[in-house]
Amino acid sequence: MAGGPLEGVRIVDLTSVVVGPLATQILADHGAEVIKVESPGGDLGRTIGGLGVTPGMGPKFLHLNRNKRSIVLDLKKPEGYQALMKLIERADVLVWNVRPDSMARMKLSYDDVRAVNPKIIYCGMFGFGQGGRYRRKPAYDSIIQGSAGVAALNHRALGEPRFLPMVIADKTVGLIAVQMMLMALFSRERTGEGQAIEIPMFENMAAFVLSEHMYMKTFDPPRGPTGDPRLLDPQAKPLATRDGWICISANTNAQAFAFFDGIGRPELKTDPRFDSIAARFRNVGEYFRIRAESLKEKTTAQWLEIFDACDVPAMPYHTLDSLMEDPHLQEVGLFQRIEHPTEGSIVNMDLPNKLSRGARSDFNPAPKIGQHSVEILREVGYSDSDIDAFVAGKVTVDGRIQK
Amino acid sequence: MAGGPLEGVRIVDLTSVVVGPLATQILADHGAEVIKVESPGGDLGRTIGGLGVTPGMGPKFLHLNRNKRSIVLDLKKPEGYQALMKLIERADVLVWNVRPDSMARMKLSYDDVRAVNPKIIYCGMFGFGQGGRYRRKPAYDSIIQGSAGVAALNHRALGEPRFLPMVIADKTVGLIAVQMMLMALFSRERTGEGQAIEIPMFENMAAFVLSEHMYMKTFDPPRGPTGDPRLLDPQAKPLATRDGWICISANTNAQAFAFFDGIGRPELKTDPRFDSIAARFRNVGEYFRIRAESLKEKTTAQWLEIFDACDVPAMPYHTLDSLMEDPHLQEVGLFQRIEHPTEGSIVNMDLPNKLSRGARSDFNPAPKIGQHSVEILREVGYSDSDIDAFVAGKVTVDGRIQK
Repeated sequence: MAGGPLEGVRIVDLTSVVVGPLATQILADHGAEVIKVESPGGDLGRTIGGLGVTPGMGPKFLHLNRNKRSIVLDLKKPEGYQALMKLIERADVLVWNVRPDSMARMKLSYDDVRAVNPKIIYCGMFGFGQGGRYRRKPAYDSIIQGSAGVAALNHRALGEPRFLPMVIADKTVGLIAVQMMLMALFSRERTGEGQAIEIPMFENMAAFVLSEHMYMKTFDPPRGPTGDPRLLDPQAKPLATRDGWICISANTNAQAFAFFDGIGRPELKTDPRFDSIAARFRNVGEYFRIRAESLKEKTTAQWLEIFDACDVPAMPYHTLDSLMEDPHLQEVGLFQRIEHPTEGSIVNMDLPNKLSRGARSDFNPAPKIGQHSVEILREVGYSDSDIDAFVAGKVTVDGRIQK
Repeated sequence: MAGGPLEGVRIVDLTSVVVGPLATQILADHGAEVIKVESPGGDLGRTIGGLGVTPGMGPKFLHLNRNKRSIVLDLKKPEGYQALMKLIERADVLVWNVRPDSMARMKLSYDDVRAVNPKIIYCGMFGFGQGGRYRRKPAYDSIIQGSAGVAALNHRALGEPRFLPMVIADKTVGLIAVQMMLMALFSRERTGEGQAIEIPMFENMAAFVLSEHMYMKTFDPPRGPTGDPRLLDPQAKPLATRDGWICISANTNAQAFAFFDGIGRPELKTDPRFDSIAARFRNVGEYFRIRAESLKEKTTAQWLEIFDACDVPAMPYHTLDSLMEDPHLQEVGLFQRIEHPTEGSIVNMDLPNKLSRGARSDFNPAPKIGQHSVEILREVGYSDSDIDAFVAGKVTVDGRIQK
């Protein structure tokens, strides 16, 4: 038994690449039993997330698929479809991230699935809600970033539309999908009823961006433009010090006044441009410029000492590489070197959040394609000769790791 | 009764600004009863998220606090603390986003709280894990972005460290906090036991960034640098057309080959630089440059027609303003004009996700400070004369809206 808050929850996972695998990894990390069902070609995420030591085991795949078991099933073959239905019969959740019409074509609509398991939670992530004109469009992270206002934020901040340099649409919607599945699981404990969940990426990201940046167009008629000017200001960046960069945040009067003292400009505390939240807000460009100019005089370490002493929120700026060496992260044990059976020594990240009753106790590195095909087929009642026939007929792939 | 999967769940919400209010709004939107406990000064998020029609009702506050009730309690006064403990006695979750030592100082540690409610779920969001040297540091979105590698992504993509133009650390950790509370609620249904949850922003964002961008340093020894070069490429942006921008995604061979046909360059399908995922990956800079150059010849509408016909994933680029006019979002009803009792007509966003058993059925716009102080104090047993004394002694504020 894995332990953790989701111990005993069984997930049949048809997802691929990022949005779904991120969601199911979070469930798996907290104790759910996740069976990753892959086509004979495997999850595309095995190959598009960088090259690994062995084929199909790229670095992003390793980070997004731990604690799952992989079974290969060719769902276009009747035997593969039947095996999937046996998995679904005993599952709590079926989760997928293709277009809904693909699910229907594969005879995996909600009606098809609940016919064999009425209490199942049927969770689909896809591009666009089924009530609008984009309903049949495919979706990828960059397309959602560009259409749902994420690239527009950079347009306002930088002068040209740009994607954020991470797959923020996939990852945000993956986090949201976990919430929706957990709500349905909670509700089923109380009511005994399963349900279907539809998670459209475009609508989710539009709402995620606009809850922050609809801004003055929240009012009807608008009381001003869209977009929070502080966040879209060209100066919204870490501040250069004599030897690097520093990040500070001084929003309340107490913080801003301590900051003015810290930089040796106490007169700004009573300057009408900066003496209240509203005043600093009206003069945000000038406030940001003063901050930027004053910090060039000392090193990052010197400023951190000054700001820590007067309780101005401040942190050093990290590159991706220095972040991996951060002493606090070492102390909390975020990075763990583990031995992967086929990929050698790899850096895994521990769960950042602590539950007082504990998380999953065991750890299983990301699987090779079909690594658990044989054991999972046995668990749902197939005999060894059935399984041999499946392998011979290319219904499955036996990807067991040879010791 | 509100309906929705979380109907009957009671949340006492001490959070403020963004990270906590986003989390509790999601719970409220799905049926939980959220009591927002504010100090007499009110949630700072009432004022720093833009100016509203009436004081303390800025646009971001409106988007992040709907479906909650507000009670003002001065927790520094014994009567205010006692009233909070009465709320906690009947709550399922207590959620907060200050530093843990502040909670202890207010006699609101997990031990204090479970003494009156042993089954409570006690959920804290704060900057830094308690096992590392940053444990006492305050945290704000920009500080976490700068220290946890988010600004570093822009550094790699743009040549200088920059924050992303949204409060992505607050919002990501808010989404994660919802997951953790729901896992604990689910587990409590099965085991009968509550628990404490610690959610450190820094560790969460470091893991969120690095699961994608640890990249070749996932391997030990490293097989290459950190950072996914496709996402960090200077060309990772919507592509300029004759009259605007378009977003396309062509990752698989089928998509890339259809794209080459669509732009009238079929010879690229057999060009060894572009004839496989691995080849396009190795030559990503050149692949991106060809894409950018070819699209300048036609309008966005012409390209969308071409790419829709050959199933190349493509969407128009939206500004924040054109997003609010998108026809698909109109058809699915994302934007709803509602009448706020004090703010006039405002644009609310409907829930993007659909649950077949339904979400919360009623809707309550974001509350004025202390709007529900009196009714909530009555619910936990205070008499009208007690409440009058609370108002007179500034233990609470009666913010009822006068009709």
